[in-house]
Amino acid sequence: MIEDFQHVCITCRDLETSIRFYERLGLEVIEPVSELNEEAIARAFQTARGHLKVLHLAPPGAPSKMFIDLVQWLEPASMGEAYPAANHIGINHLAFRVSDIDATTAALRERGIRFLSEEPQSIGPVRTILATDPDGVFVQLLEWVQGPQATA
Amino acid sequence: MIEDFQHVCITCRDLETSIRFYERLGLEVIEPVSELNEEAIARAFQTARGHLKVLHLAPPGAPSKMFIDLVQWLEPASMGEAYPAANHIGINHLAFRVSDIDATTAALRERGIRFLSEEPQSIGPVRTILATDPDGVFVQLLEWVQGPQATA
Repeated sequence: MIEDFQHVCITCRDLETSIRFYERLGLEVIEPVSELNEEAIARAFQTARGHLKVLHLAPPGAPSKMFIDLVQWLEPASMGEAYPAANHIGINHLAFRVSDIDATTAALRERGIRFLSEEPQSIGPVRTILATDPDGVFVQLLEWVQGPQATA
Repeated sequence: MIEDFQHVCITCRDLETSIRFYERLGLEVIEPVSELNEEAIARAFQTARGHLKVLHLAPPGAPSKMFIDLVQWLEPASMGEAYPAANHIGINHLAFRVSDIDATTAALRERGIRFLSEEPQSIGPVRTILATDPDGVFVQLLEWVQGPQATA
């Protein structure tokens, strides 16, 4: 029986580049880099080999206990391009709750984070803005302004 | 400042087909379908229009408060194909913690869920198996056998 979410796996081209991005975003490494090379990984994921580097990142003290499982594949190597648009089928973006979206956006922009829009947009009960990680993965920031309700 | 994860957005081709899959998997709808058509969505996501249907799903009583934001885009329509392999760059898969992975896998297989491998695989401290949703999105089930440690 499914009990809860546990993590979201992001496959990246270069682990160090992506770690720097997610640290700048405000996450911390909660499990250091491991290099794994196991047949069980290849069997589980139906890949030719199961050789990768992985680490875990999460917002400091986040109550959800969720984490990002950040993976750079070595064999087979990480490949391809992230979804180019929000209407592309698949796990399209990962959303974080932030405390003050205007201050957060300004601070992150100073740290070199790039956003899709100039300002946060009001959609139903939230104000939201999207950033892209070094591989172009969409990362959404949200500030909840009213009670819970549907939002993209 | 980032406080926590809030949701993972899955863009799907057909909302009803995907709802049935995630309900069979054991999630429940926690926010019913809304149809939104807002310029702010187009501005936030840099799409030509901001017309979509959306609902929220989560494991019943999940402590994390995370949810899946399941979206079918109408204008522009949902398009493309989900990442075909675990080493494809992007948000590659979403992982759930389960209580008894053998029993869960057997029960889900009876409900028509398709898995990548015949049996759960042991990788470090976890036993894990991957399923695919109706669009081919990878959904991972994990049972934690030992203390926390790196896992793909």
